[in-house]
Amino acid sequence: MPEIPPVYPKLPEPALRRLPWYLSYVKMLKKQGEMYVSSTQIAKEIDVSATQIAKDLSYVDITGKTRVGYHIDELIQVLDDFLGFTKLHKAVVFGVGSLGAALLSDSGLEHYGLKILAGFDVRESLVNQKIYNIPVFHSDDFTGWNKKEKAEIGILTVPPDYAQQVADYMIANGIKGIWNFTPFRIRVPEGIALQNTSLYAHLAVMFNRLM
Amino acid sequence: MPEIPPVYPKLPEPALRRLPWYLSYVKMLKKQGEMYVSSTQIAKEIDVSATQIAKDLSYVDITGKTRVGYHIDELIQVLDDFLGFTKLHKAVVFGVGSLGAALLSDSGLEHYGLKILAGFDVRESLVNQKIYNIPVFHSDDFTGWNKKEKAEIGILTVPPDYAQQVADYMIANGIKGIWNFTPFRIRVPEGIALQNTSLYAHLAVMFNRLM
Repeated sequence: MPEIPPVYPKLPEPALRRLPWYLSYVKMLKKQGEMYVSSTQIAKEIDVSATQIAKDLSYVDITGKTRVGYHIDELIQVLDDFLGFTKLHKAVVFGVGSLGAALLSDSGLEHYGLKILAGFDVRESLVNQKIYNIPVFHSDDFTGWNKKEKAEIGILTVPPDYAQQVADYMIANGIKGIWNFTPFRIRVPEGIALQNTSLYAHLAVMFNRLM
Repeated sequence: MPEIPPVYPKLPEPALRRLPWYLSYVKMLKKQGEMYVSSTQIAKEIDVSATQIAKDLSYVDITGKTRVGYHIDELIQVLDDFLGFTKLHKAVVFGVGSLGAALLSDSGLEHYGLKILAGFDVRESLVNQKIYNIPVFHSDDFTGWNKKEKAEIGILTVPPDYAQQVADYMIANGIKGIWNFTPFRIRVPEGIALQNTSLYAHLAVMFNRLM
């Protein structure tokens, strides 16, 4: 019989955003030689209530033990799996400008489950070059390329004016999730995952808070 | 008499995060030769209600005209100023690993008001080298360096285990705002601006939404 993957109840997004904090903290504890951690202990470090942490962790497949708490190795493995970091997701970068090239060079992403296979751009000076050993192809070639490679994640780092049309093009060619780094608010059809990471909006928030 | 800068009422953070979307959209309209834009028109593109947009824009120093709306050139200038993109903020990068070096290479940040002056790291192989023409110094030298250079923003891309201590060190040496790219949830004293941009948490959210 084929293995049936476990089904988890749908985790609310704020909880999902907190899980990487817990993971990062317990990885540090592991390095320090700890074996168990309680939600109270995590709460002290992370500034989230112990009740909330226990609730968040109830969505993932782990059970703490009375008095000792969660087994750290198990907690790390379960969180890594749950967050999708242990499975490699094939990705492409559209727009190999300054930020796009920077993301191609960030090998750290691979440790978190993102495998960037290629970059795509329309500028002839970039096409058929390699950047950090990752090939760059002409955007027009994506249709044929992705029939074979079946990348499912598209990283969007084109100029904002082109963001929507490039997103539409990626989706028409099999991309299931778009990581949008442009400041443009693109729209995607139902069933397509969209994550906006506007570095410039984050910058604006920080500038605004500087005293 | 010295010029007195205008005082704006405190803008709520969700509104602040929306302003870059409007800016991006009206910059595109300008390229298309448009001169005026109404909040209704922005609303159609951006998926935020016209009332909300008018309210958000009421915080910045601009007034629309009946029937024609906002003058696009003026709106761009006012938003660019308001968001802090027209003033250069001096910054340093702590941790010149894969992501840190990637940020050093992203010249786009400078167009949004962030001037990265130097990187700091403890690895001897990196110290006193240049990466994309930006010098890298030993972290221990930051104290003396920043007495002269007075950088106010610290970009944190060290391994998560060191995030808190490096943040404390930056703050002790004059940094007023920390842009935290590590998955570790650092704490900062009151009066210090903190912006968390955990790429890995964003990845996790996207992986989780993939069908």
